[in-house]
Amino acid sequence: MDRHIAPVELKKAYRLVNHGPTVLVSARHDGVDNVMAAAWACGLDFMPPKLTVVLDKSAKTREFVERSGMFVIQVPTAAQIRLTHAVGSHSLAERPTKLSDAGVTLFDIEGQDLPFVAGCSAWLACRLIPEPHNQQAYDLFIGEVVAAWSDTRVFRDGHWHFESADPELRSLHYIAGGSFYAIGESLQIDPAAE
Amino acid sequence: MDRHIAPVELKKAYRLVNHGPTVLVSARHDGVDNVMAAAWACGLDFMPPKLTVVLDKSAKTREFVERSGMFVIQVPTAAQIRLTHAVGSHSLAERPTKLSDAGVTLFDIEGQDLPFVAGCSAWLACRLIPEPHNQQAYDLFIGEVVAAWSDTRVFRDGHWHFESADPELRSLHYIAGGSFYAIGESLQIDPAAE
Repeated sequence: MDRHIAPVELKKAYRLVNHGPTVLVSARHDGVDNVMAAAWACGLDFMPPKLTVVLDKSAKTREFVERSGMFVIQVPTAAQIRLTHAVGSHSLAERPTKLSDAGVTLFDIEGQDLPFVAGCSAWLACRLIPEPHNQQAYDLFIGEVVAAWSDTRVFRDGHWHFESADPELRSLHYIAGGSFYAIGESLQIDPAAE
Repeated sequence: MDRHIAPVELKKAYRLVNHGPTVLVSARHDGVDNVMAAAWACGLDFMPPKLTVVLDKSAKTREFVERSGMFVIQVPTAAQIRLTHAVGSHSLAERPTKLSDAGVTLFDIEGQDLPFVAGCSAWLACRLIPEPHNQQAYDLFIGEVVAAWSDTRVFRDGHWHFESADPELRSLHYIAGGSFYAIGESLQIDPAAE
């Protein structure tokens, strides 16, 4: 594991996705790994941390999530904009070399039988909470975050540090048609003064 | 209605929240209006556009949504950071003057019996799709977007223009404890070249 990667305590894991980044979803089934992009991922609860993610019926990753009951939500960086767009544009079903074509490198984390995408800024290992009606009617999946990690160059001590980190580590926020925004300026108010 | 506000065609309405901004949720019941902040709002479908939003059981706005079956999701701006934090920190139940204390000005849009927050960059009028299990078990609400509008100084022709608009019009992305990020730099890739 990269020396910059460290665990994030579960009660602060929601902060990894609270600012609404586009994420990568990865899953493993029967020895095969896959990765897709998802703009529609969102916090759902603080503790235990839960999140939602929308997975289209055409996505092979969705099938792996349904079969294995586990997945990873990870936060890609500005440096990974092409990788993110590529894994969001092709399906493993029609392109077996999808991951290598997109330049995806996977790595392991001890104790987790899941594929983690190298180069991201945060990783949340999730257990699927099966909700068949949501999955069928809305493509909506609910996961409980069981463990989380971050790249400490940009998230440490429970806080993002986008403003002082390399701009290449900023999160991506997808709009449409190849158009993204990076996260921007830090704006802080004093809650006690409000 | 402000001269900068114009309708957004429904098939492009998902783009108003696709980048994961913190939003304001407003609703009206029995002649009373309320507004709250929500970091957990997310796209769910393109057409008809749907979205999810998490509304805590302690929120008065939630009660108004459940009773009226309608709500507005709006995208506040960097200029509204204090307003956003304030309506997210207090409940109408314990502070009847919450909206005026937070500096909220509401306006009407013809044909909509809903309270719209002035000064935002986008507004999505939503009809609740009742899902009692999600609402009770997860505080998770699903809405179908029935109409949408934007401030054309920052969203027009189906696209955000944060990079050329006044920085005060940038969207807010909440983390925790009074800490927000504004949306940042535009990053564009050519989908045809990928």
